[in-house]
Amino acid sequence: MTFASKIFETRVIKMADREETILAGGRHLFPILPKAFDGIRQIGVIGWSSQGPAQAQNLRESLDGSGIRVKVGLREGSASMKQAAALGFTKESKTLGEMYDVIRESEMSLLLISDAALAENYRTVFAAFRPGTTLGLSHGFLLSHLRAQGEDFPKDINVIAVCPKGMGPSVRRLYEQGRAVNGAGINASFAVHQDVDGKAIDYALGWSVALGSPYTFETTLESEYKSDIFGERGVLLGAVHGIAESLYARFVGQGMAEDEAFINTAESITGPISKLISRSGLKAVYEQLNENEKAMFRAAYNASYGPCREILEEIYDDVASGNEVRSVIQATRRHSAYPMGKIDDTEMWVVGERARANTQRNYAPINPETAGVYLACMMAQVDVLKDRGHPYSEIANESIIEAVDSLNPYMSYKGASYMIDNCSTTARLGARKWASRFDYILKQQAFPSIDKGIASDSAPFDDFMSNDIHDVLTVCAELRPSLDISVVPR
Amino acid sequence: MTFASKIFETRVIKMADREETILAGGRHLFPILPKAFDGIRQIGVIGWSSQGPAQAQNLRESLDGSGIRVKVGLREGSASMKQAAALGFTKESKTLGEMYDVIRESEMSLLLISDAALAENYRTVFAAFRPGTTLGLSHGFLLSHLRAQGEDFPKDINVIAVCPKGMGPSVRRLYEQGRAVNGAGINASFAVHQDVDGKAIDYALGWSVALGSPYTFETTLESEYKSDIFGERGVLLGAVHGIAESLYARFVGQGMAEDEAFINTAESITGPISKLISRSGLKAVYEQLNENEKAMFRAAYNASYGPCREILEEIYDDVASGNEVRSVIQATRRHSAYPMGKIDDTEMWVVGERARANTQRNYAPINPETAGVYLACMMAQVDVLKDRGHPYSEIANESIIEAVDSLNPYMSYKGASYMIDNCSTTARLGARKWASRFDYILKQQAFPSIDKGIASDSAPFDDFMSNDIHDVLTVCAELRPSLDISVVPR
Repeated sequence: MTFASKIFETRVIKMADREETILAGGRHLFPILPKAFDGIRQIGVIGWSSQGPAQAQNLRESLDGSGIRVKVGLREGSASMKQAAALGFTKESKTLGEMYDVIRESEMSLLLISDAALAENYRTVFAAFRPGTTLGLSHGFLLSHLRAQGEDFPKDINVIAVCPKGMGPSVRRLYEQGRAVNGAGINASFAVHQDVDGKAIDYALGWSVALGSPYTFETTLESEYKSDIFGERGVLLGAVHGIAESLYARFVGQGMAEDEAFINTAESITGPISKLISRSGLKAVYEQLNENEKAMFRAAYNASYGPCREILEEIYDDVASGNEVRSVIQATRRHSAYPMGKIDDTEMWVVGERARANTQRNYAPINPETAGVYLACMMAQVDVLKDRGHPYSEIANESIIEAVDSLNPYMSYKGASYMIDNCSTTARLGARKWASRFDYILKQQAFPSIDKGIASDSAPFDDFMSNDIHDVLTVCAELRPSLDISVVPR
Repeated sequence: MTFASKIFETRVIKMADREETILAGGRHLFPILPKAFDGIRQIGVIGWSSQGPAQAQNLRESLDGSGIRVKVGLREGSASMKQAAALGFTKESKTLGEMYDVIRESEMSLLLISDAALAENYRTVFAAFRPGTTLGLSHGFLLSHLRAQGEDFPKDINVIAVCPKGMGPSVRRLYEQGRAVNGAGINASFAVHQDVDGKAIDYALGWSVALGSPYTFETTLESEYKSDIFGERGVLLGAVHGIAESLYARFVGQGMAEDEAFINTAESITGPISKLISRSGLKAVYEQLNENEKAMFRAAYNASYGPCREILEEIYDDVASGNEVRSVIQATRRHSAYPMGKIDDTEMWVVGERARANTQRNYAPINPETAGVYLACMMAQVDVLKDRGHPYSEIANESIIEAVDSLNPYMSYKGASYMIDNCSTTARLGARKWASRFDYILKQQAFPSIDKGIASDSAPFDDFMSNDIHDVLTVCAELRPSLDISVVPR
């Protein structure tokens, strides 16, 4: 993937056998944001779910003093208006308004309302964009929905996307850390879907820099929605939840105390495993185990890779065929009668709440079996995306970096539902749907082969050790500062 | 639903507030089958998966001496040719041949090959039908697939369906019992989708009578595939599997011994609960409990109805929108790399195998909590189908009779995989997909509300007691003899 900016200095980086053009971010670029946003006097931030509050605040702070106004647009009477006002977006200061008015007034509007609301109202939304203005998305869901309807975007506007590889609260939290550590933030992809005035690339890059993205890589709306909807159903949310539940049940069934089982599964993943991957890459997890533990890791890895990959292939096909997006739309139509239920009343999360409250508890170890299962699933996701032709930056961010730097710290802080239910409705539904599939296939296939000692095929682990992704992660790591990813410092 | 036969004497039965025309079957009708099959000299039975062996044998036996030949058609070189020959379908006796040849020779051909094979080859299959002949299906899957492709059946042939409400082995087993008890068999629905010669209704009815159906009711191909694909993902296969796994884990977690937990979950459902429903209806299960047990049943029922219904509504929407059929086609394309895996290596089924081998084991009780969860799911399925406009006969057969008379006896005999993996690929995939969803939602929502004692809403149980389905089951029961449904008599 390659692209050219008129404003920013891009870089070509070598990732394994491929080259990608990227933009490295940082606060030193904020002074040139007005040039990138040439012709834009007001940016509308439409919606207040996961991404809205984060992006509105980051943009306002990055554009402070530039003369470009950031204005939040919400449904009139929306309960979120109060929350926006509490953060300083008010009608009095002309930084809060009715959403369609805000779109009509703005030269660029970012549509961060829920996927379901966008699916219901896109015709009215499109009609509010003046010709020559810019429509921004933070993921590609709408394209998938439009295609299913046989429709398209209006032809006389720019259509761009900047897609942070982390949920809204992380986009805000790491941006704040960036005040002290220049370049801290959540990586983002960008896509230019329509460019009517030749400025779309720099609008997108400016937006991404203003969000605090340490680095920005190019993708397409189609590649983005496939990898995004796929990834959150996989190891980012659905799979990590199912893996934790299934391993917890396994360890308790083997006689481990409940608190210990929690610490050796959920906490092991979200604590030491995630932090080590973030700092030192995937192989570091294996390499710091002793010989005995290494053998356990390999057995778990080899037994789990195939079953996890089977479910991941199914997810990818269901996303690519539009099944998942259709299911999301159908589910939201049922929500008045069947609202989304709780997922953390199971034994493991009740135990987890107790464990988290116990400040005297043991520090979570890297459990070798947990690590083997988790990394096998993560690598299966990497390999599916690679086979389906996604760029390395997208693969690394959608499968690894978003997990360890953005999402898992939230699960560590307050459990699975805190991580999952702070994401979009599309993500919340998908995580609920697929977590159980990973749980079942691990219990039905992976764990029995570990126990029978028949996981003799060593190919998955051998492929892991020689996988290109390790180089890719090294390059990615050089593009952002190393920092403490904990939501709440211990 | 009403229809008119020129050959058979139909009946109008009253089911709650509605009337349905049906045909009561029995061996006394076999002598008039040649009249029903007027113009048909040979019936081709194409395929040898779940339904093929059963239907070929039943038809041959019912038409013995009629001069109508029943000929099995298979792919040349298929391994099934040997199995067919072992049952007397041989090339020498002109009752076995290459499938396309058999279709070309026959006046009526029943397409009982796998859904995936039909989806791949339907154009070639259609081309083999001579104008004026009759195409028979045993469920509506193909219509759903044709619609998704924007295609249709050839216009110059009859298209009919006879859909036994049980898997192939049951269709054969109960037919054999019918030699001693006239009218024993598996109920069936029929649909006439195209009638080019005015004979299609009686062809379908003759086919159903020859299979041994105690009673035959009318439906449409669309109503059939929706209820069929939905039902097997629900309480018939997917839900009963997930319910058993989740309750087993719950009881073991509460300290029950493994064998006892198996007996109180899977065996309780497939043994005494199924037999009692088959003999005496749904309320009988509740009524034979003592007061203490009744309270446990009600708590479990009220806590489980909503969560089960939520998943069932999702399944229905995914079936109706074509998502499920698309997923099945996608899955079969992945099967060369990712064949369907085992489902009975989990602890519960390993314990179950041991328990079944122990002839000294305790006889399974009706566990009140298991009964409450299971009946809540069954009734949620009944209510979804009723709300979506299915006829009562279809509802009763797809939700209750098929479960207790056809499928559960197989799970009782050799476990979940023996029941599920003797069904069609579409069913096997769907059961694997949805079992885990029921398991998770019960653990996340139903069990916590039972334990917290907060399942105070008594509406689900009250609706159960006054539900029309009890009348419907009474009418259905009068239409068939009462017999021992065990796969292997104890």
